Parts: sequence; structure tokens; C-alpha cells
Amino acid sequence: MNKKQNILIIGAGLCGSLLALRLGQRGYNVSVYEMRPDLRKVDISAGRSINLAFSNRGNKAMKLVDIEDKVKAICIPMTGRMIHDKEGNAFLSNYSGRDHEYINSVSRGELNALLLDEAEKHENVSIYFNKKCKSVNFKKTTALFKDYETKSDFVEDADVIIATDGAGSAMRKSYYLGKTFLFSFSQDYLTHGYKELSILPTETGDYKTYKNALHIWPRGTFMLIALPNLDGSFTVTLFLSYDDGAYNFNNLTTPEIVSEFFQKEFPDALQLMPNLVKDFFNNPTAPLGTVKCSPWHYKGNTLLMGDSAHAIVPFYGQGMNASFEDVVEFDAVLDQNLENWEAVFKAYEKNRKKDTDAIADLAIDNFHEMKDHVANPIFQEKRKLEMALEKSFPDEYSSKYSLVTFNENIGYREAMLKGRAQDKAILNMLTDKELSITHDMTKDALKVILEKVKTATQDILEEDKIAGLKKS
Amino acid sequence: MNKKQNILIIGAGLCGSLLALRLGQRGYNVSVYEMRPDLRKVDISAGRSINLAFSNRGNKAMKLVDIEDKVKAICIPMTGRMIHDKEGNAFLSNYSGRDHEYINSVSRGELNALLLDEAEKHENVSIYFNKKCKSVNFKKTTALFKDYETKSDFVEDADVIIATDGAGSAMRKSYYLGKTFLFSFSQDYLTHGYKELSILPTETGDYKTYKNALHIWPRGTFMLIALPNLDGSFTVTLFLSYDDGAYNFNNLTTPEIVSEFFQKEFPDALQLMPNLVKDFFNNPTAPLGTVKCSPWHYKGNTLLMGDSAHAIVPFYGQGMNASFEDVVEFDAVLDQNLENWEAVFKAYEKNRKKDTDAIADLAIDNFHEMKDHVANPIFQEKRKLEMALEKSFPDEYSSKYSLVTFNENIGYREAMLKGRAQDKAILNMLTDKELSITHDMTKDALKVILEKVKTATQDILEEDKIAGLKKS
Repeated sequence: MNKKQNILIIGAGLCGSLLALRLGQRGYNVSVYEMRPDLRKVDISAGRSINLAFSNRGNKAMKLVDIEDKVKAICIPMTGRMIHDKEGNAFLSNYSGRDHEYINSVSRGELNALLLDEAEKHENVSIYFNKKCKSVNFKKTTALFKDYETKSDFVEDADVIIATDGAGSAMRKSYYLGKTFLFSFSQDYLTHGYKELSILPTETGDYKTYKNALHIWPRGTFMLIALPNLDGSFTVTLFLSYDDGAYNFNNLTTPEIVSEFFQKEFPDALQLMPNLVKDFFNNPTAPLGTVKCSPWHYKGNTLLMGDSAHAIVPFYGQGMNASFEDVVEFDAVLDQNLENWEAVFKAYEKNRKKDTDAIADLAIDNFHEMKDHVANPIFQEKRKLEMALEKSFPDEYSSKYSLVTFNENIGYREAMLKGRAQDKAILNMLTDKELSITHDMTKDALKVILEKVKTATQDILEEDKIAGLKKS
Repeated sequence: MNKKQNILIIGAGLCGSLLALRLGQRGYNVSVYEMRPDLRKVDISAGRSINLAFSNRGNKAMKLVDIEDKVKAICIPMTGRMIHDKEGNAFLSNYSGRDHEYINSVSRGELNALLLDEAEKHENVSIYFNKKCKSVNFKKTTALFKDYETKSDFVEDADVIIATDGAGSAMRKSYYLGKTFLFSFSQDYLTHGYKELSILPTETGDYKTYKNALHIWPRGTFMLIALPNLDGSFTVTLFLSYDDGAYNFNNLTTPEIVSEFFQKEFPDALQLMPNLVKDFFNNPTAPLGTVKCSPWHYKGNTLLMGDSAHAIVPFYGQGMNASFEDVVEFDAVLDQNLENWEAVFKAYEKNRKKDTDAIADLAIDNFHEMKDHVANPIFQEKRKLEMALEKSFPDEYSSKYSLVTFNENIGYREAMLKGRAQDKAILNMLTDKELSITHDMTKDALKVILEKVKTATQDILEEDKIAGLKKS
């Protein structure tokens, strides 16, 4: 296809700006229209998470566009979960038994600014801010925008429109309301919402608690988490039901009740947060939703990418990574030199959707894991065993978490199926006392366990396949 | 709550007319507004299935409103699936090993007419036709209608509005577009559509093929089915992909190709259908979708019931039965004398949604079972074994199909969990040759198998529970 084709991208968030950069590198004429002001010039948070987890799948995309080192410079490694109980005790549960595997806390704004800078280095890439997409005519391949500066509407056309305009995508809404084709669509809200709080740095600018971890205060039906920022602060997030339980977002209405709740449930965190009440009442409570849809494309005219196609809850730290991986996968399809855009979009969706569906479901799994299971003794035993297996057999074993997070060369769906089967195998064998684990196991003893786990995992996968009457 | 309250029902289809009848019996003032003309006076099909499968859960509702006998008079029993292969061979696979368990073919129109007649016997029930609901103001508990006769719009208010206006519900759309509360919603289309055809009676008014079965021509990726009507005809439905495969709805565009397709795939059916080509091009091709949503109610003002809350694909023959069961469940909540409508709606949804979610998923399972698995030798072996178990141990064993269809006193979700575990247990033991089945097994030998199946089923359920770290 002709490189001089005009590609219109709706949205210059993380996915849109990376896509613009990559398509710019490939030589397309790229125009990006973003609803918000330029975040490099104006301080905007707009209710979105301030920091995000960045890991291997995202980094693969950074390698593709050759900015790995620049991103690394703004990352804070988090090697594990620091789990805090009600009594103020804490222990670190590593994410992997392999030392080089960890996740990172990164500022959404800084990373987005970097991607915008890199994209704009290409003459064939133009980015326009304060232009809100109102709707897309996917039959005519045109988009209607409102210019927030001139207050007037305008229409842009292009050879191809790609919407990376997030969970509330205007183009997806046009697909839904258009009723031109059968559009499968779901939006699923959790009964929990979230609110961002903060642990500020010490007076000398230091971190008030351990820097290199993702802190979790799991309380069964709700939780608090904290991720470090470069300035010594932590962004803290409370995940809590709107309606249920003794304390919930609907009844935390006064400074007294909020303080009482934290004093009772998170006393150690409260000590680090003298600013709690102010944050609590200044910051919005936001919902947690999953969006899936299909098809993502209309013929060869338009395509949904990133959160506009598949918004997920934040519990696996994979939202941004999945959107970045979209660009990597899309780029790989472009390399196939298919005959037209429709073929490209079709091949991309066919290959990709099974994986974005999987990470959506995995992210829900991890909600329960983080708020509840991490405090469960049998789950903790599983994690210890998995760390030992990963440490002793780095090339032979990867936990579900590792498969999802650190194995960027296998898809989310494969990671999910194998990871869930492994978890089921280990949890059942631990419960049935079929695995005897001691503190000082020899490598030979661990090898026996590894083989048991492998066999049981294979059996589970095989039994599921037979139950589904799948042709093998 | 005051019996003299005014209840407005949107839609006088199967669910709405049953609900009107039941609430009329309970003494409420009921007004029903229906978009279509009165089907007792005008012949309308409106693209919906002409006949439907009616079974125990539906019948439980008929008992509740005391019209069981009247419905029985218009039912045609179907004792099993008559499975037709490509060579024209056919065999009957019973739905149950218990003789008194079978499903029924019933005319949608006749059943609906009966329910309307019964509802209108109550002075406190009024039904208005040709009144289309355009939207619902769920905060004010008012509904906007268009009167197709006068062409004018009008607004009705009520103490409570219950929408039984089907898969394309206007009230559900108002929930979605209102953005007043977090509304989880999904519409999922299969890549297959369906088209209704017919096998006409013989010249003497007889059935051209076996009357008391649901006929299936399973072909792996597509299928044909047929259900008997009282007039000697069969309603035939082709389920086929829109896009995929050698023959699909998009390429069956000429009489020659349609005839060629049927000659090749369904030669015995084609012989019974000289009217095939005419039917094929006269009748619409319709999509197959699943709708789920939550919450169903807005405070104590409005409630979705039946297909408007949970539309499912037709493959378990449970769509109508599930909607009728909604009324039974709603009635049971009314018996609890809760303090207000909000408490009633909340209790109803909490109790009911898990089951309607389950039947939606089971119906998708059965799509694959009907078009594909029924022709699979190991699946057929499972069915034969299950028939033998049900026959020899009628009080101890029920297949998944029986649990869903004939066990109206357990919910769909429980039926799904137990039924899927049983299927998995049997299919795996058959595959691993752990069950040795012969044609002439003694009851003692079957008892051994029964115990094996029970134990393996329990193990599967227990292992799943442990894998989910569920509190038992």
C-alpha cells in the first residue's frame, strides 16, 4: 500500500501517540486529533491514574520505536508486592524468582510527553490539540470534530481513520449507534469504584516507605495500593464497593468516618497520610469497567485500537502494556504487505482479539487475587513454591503472573490458559498435601515437584479439551 | 404494598401477557401497552419464531396461573432429537431416560393469544395495542408512547413500570443512554444467522416425517432443525454463518446455489421441501444475539423482565421458559411482603440474575452441541450412557440436559455447574477407557458406573472450588 496515504488518528494518549510515532517511522502521513490540551504545556490529570505499571510487553513496543533507554530513565522498578496486614506487619512477595524480572512504576504524563515529542520529530506527523471527536462516519471515512479553541465544528477525511480515543471512544459509539452492521459490545462495571490518594515525600524528599515495591493492603472485599513516583511520593488508590460492607463509598461522607475507616483498616498507611482527608474529598470516585467489542474495524475504512477496542480494569497492570502491544501486533501485520487495509484490519483483529479478551478476564481475576487471595495462606504457599521453581529452573517454569507479565513472546490467551491450569494444579496438590514443601529443599527435591506440577497441568489442559470436545 | 397500585407493563408478548395475568390475579391495576396489533385479530409473524420449545420451567408458570391444561391442549410432545446424517440415515436420541420427561413444540401465536385472553378476563387488567414505547423516564416513572392509530405521542405514568418489551427493549435503551447510574450491558452476536423455512403437510394433512421429535441435521459448522406444528407442517430453521465456509448466507444468492447446497448437505430434507427456494428468498435472515445487563431495576420505579433483561440464543429451547420462570420468581418475591418496590426488585434481581446468566451461556454451549457434537461418537456414547443411568436410576441421575430442562426446582446456575462437571467427568472417563459400557449391562454394573460418575463429578466441582480459592 502507498506510504503516502493519509492516516487520521483520534486521540493522542499513550496508544495514539505511540501509533503516530510508529506510523510516522513507516512513512505514512499521520494527523492526530486530541481532545485535551497539550499535556506538555498544561498540567492536566483529568481523573486518570497518575502512575502506571510498565512491563515487558510495553517495553517490546518501546524497542520497536527505539526509545527503550529514554523510557527506562523515567521508570522505578518494583520487584514485588509489599503486603501489609492490619497489625502493620509487611512482607515482600516477589513478582518473579528471576532477578531480572520486575515491573516498573512510570508517570502517565511523562511517558505520554516523551511519545508526543518523538512522534513530532517526524515531519509527516502532525498533532492537533483541543479537538474533540464527536462522531465518525465510518462509511465515508470522515470524522466530525469540535474545536475547543474556535468553538466551531469541522470535518476531516482520510484514507484510514484509527480511533485510539479510550474507553469512552466516540468512534465506538458511532459503530454502536450506526446499526449498519452486527456490532457485539459489552461494558461491565465492577460494584467497586476507586479513588486516588497520596503519600507525600518526607521533608527531605525521600520515600516514606519502601520504594521498590507495589504496596498492597488487602482486606478481602476491598484494598488499598500504592505505587512510587520519581519525586518521592506514592500514588495511593483505594478500591472499595460503592454500596456494600460496613464502609463504602456511599457512606464515607464525613472526615470523621473516613479517618475512622483508615484507622481501623489501614493504620500504618494512615500514619503516612496526614493529607488523607483532604485528598479523599478533593478527588473524584471513579468507576471500574471492562469494555469488549467486535468487530473493531469497518471494512478498510476505520479501526479501533487500545482502550477504545478493549478497556480493562487496572488490576494486572496491563492496560497500557496491552495497548502498546496492539501497536506491535499491528506493525507486524503491516509487515505482511497484505493487499489492502481491510485485509490488514481483519488479520490484526483475528490475531489480536483473543488476547485482549484474555487480559480483560485476567485483570478481573487479579482483582480478587490482590484484595483477597494474597492474604490466603494456601495462596502464599503457592507463591513461595513458584518463586523457588522460577529461581531453580528459570528456563523451565513461569508462574501465571510471569507468563502474563514477563513473557512478551507468548500471547495473553496462551498465558491465561496455561497459567490458570498451573494455579489449579498447584492449589489442589497443596490442599491435598500431595506436595511436601520445606524451607530448605534441595534442587533435586524441587525437580520432583516441578515434574508433578507439569504433569498435573498437562492433565488439566487435556481434560478441559476433552470436555469441550475440541479437535486436538 | 397497596394492591390498588397502578402497574404499567410495556409489551404484551409471552412474558408481558403472563405477567399481566399473574398481577391481575394478585389484584393490581395493570395496564399493558403493546407495539403490535392484537395478534388474535391480525395475522402477524414479524420475523419471530413461529413455534417454540415448551418444557417444565414454563409449565411451572402455567400451573401458577392455573392454565396448565389449556396449554397442554396446544402442545406437541417431542421425546428426543431425530438426528439426520448426510446419507439420509436417521436415529432418535431421547432427551431423557425417564418416559415422562419430554419437551413440547408450541405455537408462539396460539400461546400468546391464550395468555391475552386469560389476562383480559380480569377487570383490573387492560391491554392496549398499536402503542409503541419510545422511551422511559425512569426517574419520573413515566413512559412515552407513539400511538400507531392516531399517529400522536402520549405519556403514561404509573406507580411502577415493568418492561417486557423484548431483546430490543426501549426501556433498556433509556437506561443505557441515560447515564444516570452505572449500567453494565452486553450484546453479543454469533457469526451465524438463521432463516425459517417449512415442511408443508401431505395432501391429506399428515406429517411428512416423524412428528414427535425435534429434527436435527448437524453438519459441524452449520445445521438445519425442524419442529412440528399442529397443522401437520414443520417449521424448519437453517442456522448458517453469514461469511464463513463454502456456503454461507452472503453467497447463497441464487435458486441454483441454494438448491445445490441443500442437495449436497440435506438431501433427505430437500425431498420434503419442494417449496424450499420460495421460502428461502421470501423469508428474512435474522441475527442471533445474547443480551445481558445489570441492574435490571431503577430504584423502586422500573424493572426489566424477560428478553428485555436477558435475551438468549434459541439452542436450549429455554428462551420462553426462562421468561415464564421470571414471572414465577417475581411472584415468589411478592409473597415475601417486602417493605417497598425497591426491595422487591432488588431481591428479585439478586436471586434471578445468576440463573439467567447461566442459561445464556448454556444456550451458546448447546449451539455447538447441536450443530457438531451430536454427530461425535464419544458424545453419542455419553448420551447413551446417560439414558441408561436415567432409566435405571431415575431418582439418582439427571444429565445436564435433564437438569436444565426437566428439573424446574433447581436454578439454571446450579444445573449448569453440576451438568458441566458431569459431562466433563463422563467424556474424560470414556476417552480414557475408564468406563466399560456394553449393550446389555446389568443394573449392578450400571450402578458401579453411576458411582464412578458421581465421584468424578464431585472431584471436579471440588477442584474448581479450590482453584477459585472459594470459601466452602
